[in-house]
Amino acid sequence: MLILITYDVNTETAAGRKRLRQVAKQCVNYGQRVQNSVFECQLDGVKYRQVKAILEKIIDKDKDSLRFYNLGENYKTKVEHIGAKAGFDVTEPLIF
Amino acid sequence: MLILITYDVNTETAAGRKRLRQVAKQCVNYGQRVQNSVFECQLDGVKYRQVKAILEKIIDKDKDSLRFYNLGENYKTKVEHIGAKAGFDVTEPLIF
Repeated sequence: MLILITYDVNTETAAGRKRLRQVAKQCVNYGQRVQNSVFECQLDGVKYRQVKAILEKIIDKDKDSLRFYNLGENYKTKVEHIGAKAGFDVTEPLIF
Repeated sequence: MLILITYDVNTETAAGRKRLRQVAKQCVNYGQRVQNSVFECQLDGVKYRQVKAILEKIIDKDKDSLRFYNLGENYKTKVEHIGAKAGFDVTEPLIF
């Protein structure tokens, strides 16, 4: 299934900026960055629970937030992109 | 249907910061801000096309991006929030 992860991390402090870097770094391990704070991740149930648990430990729940949207399997018709830096299709191999 | 709008606007210039303010201002007219650059909007087809056309005119397509995710009608089980500032349910009236 395609899981969309979006996050808001409060970067007013150095600790906040560190949390932001850590969240982004973890998300990169699980999917494709499509915007600055938006990742699309092809995950099964196990990986989904894993990434949620990891991110939940990083953020400050009083200041930051995470949102997870389950777009299911048939998501290609559900997504539209306008403008710069369209994401790659994470289900297809990259050929160089 | 619930349309999720996410955006990245390049704010390196004053013009970029103006575009960011304009995008956010328009999105507020169509739905609920759930994160800094993420809005959830209850829209029919007409309103969906309308907001897309408005936002498309504001952004600089070489520098900024918009993404639209159609979460359909049965979205409540598809969304999880962790941390600060959970959004309101846009389908239910606010009672004060």
